[in-house]
Amino acid sequence: MIEILRLNHRLPRDCRITTHVALVARAFGAIKMYYSGQKDSEMEESVNSVVKRFGGPFDIEYINNAIKLINEKKDEYNIIHLTVYGLPYKKVLKNLSKNVLIIVGGDKVEWNIYKLAKYNLSVSSQPHSEVGALAIFLNDLHGDVKKFKNFKLQIVPNEREKVLKEFK
Amino acid sequence: MIEILRLNHRLPRDCRITTHVALVARAFGAIKMYYSGQKDSEMEESVNSVVKRFGGPFDIEYINNAIKLINEKKDEYNIIHLTVYGLPYKKVLKNLSKNVLIIVGGDKVEWNIYKLAKYNLSVSSQPHSEVGALAIFLNDLHGDVKKFKNFKLQIVPNEREKVLKEFK
Repeated sequence: MIEILRLNHRLPRDCRITTHVALVARAFGAIKMYYSGQKDSEMEESVNSVVKRFGGPFDIEYINNAIKLINEKKDEYNIIHLTVYGLPYKKVLKNLSKNVLIIVGGDKVEWNIYKLAKYNLSVSSQPHSEVGALAIFLNDLHGDVKKFKNFKLQIVPNEREKVLKEFK
Repeated sequence: MIEILRLNHRLPRDCRITTHVALVARAFGAIKMYYSGQKDSEMEESVNSVVKRFGGPFDIEYINNAIKLINEKKDEYNIIHLTVYGLPYKKVLKNLSKNVLIIVGGDKVEWNIYKLAKYNLSVSSQPHSEVGALAIFLNDLHGDVKKFKNFKLQIVPNEREKVLKEFK
């Protein structure tokens, strides 16, 4: 079970980045994304619209206390915080057998998060993007095995055309 | 030699996404990003500021004609267009021995791009993020081998602290 916690969502600055975080989470095996900061119904709607069309399971939920969520999860989940300052992620990846909660920051992550996380992990030790870091991490963690359910549309890979298969 | 072409940058909508595309490009082995659409000096500056602090080589350049650039590059570069509609990227990855120009879209990519690209490739065949797709693609293409030069700062991986090494 893979879940994501996106910290400190700010309006309007983070709308698209947080949407991308959620869609990457959905595509690469997570079943849920929590987010803290400012509630953003429009962002939730655009994520839910992808889930409705292209399938789930994937939920998005606003929470107002990230620390409380982490404390509730920490007995049953490996709490992983993706941060540029952390240890190289690859060394830890193979030891993650049980449930995983992956935390991705906004700009300023409070010190508590570093302390509460079981692992603070970096994808490359270079500054880039929480979207990119999460994508690489999940792709390596989960592989290509997520099976989507309840979709109305499916993309059919093609050399040069846009092919969508519709289900009724 | 890996270069990126980001299409149809729009202000202010794409500022942060395009910045993330550029930083992912830099972190995972590209040496240059071209972008078309609207010129954005602020975005260029925030990318250049990362290059100044954390090293290069990495250039960013605005171009007003993406098709012309592709036509100039196509004899010497494998032109790859990352699109959700394309073929699974993994099958092609091992055949990419020479220079690579990777095109990532904005929302509406003109039909010409699909035609001009040698390969239209998808990372997962699920809708998510050009940042996420580029990160996974470059990470698999390039691995961890980019050696940065001319940096003033370097992040030192740490279990729980933020450690930056400064060079003078």
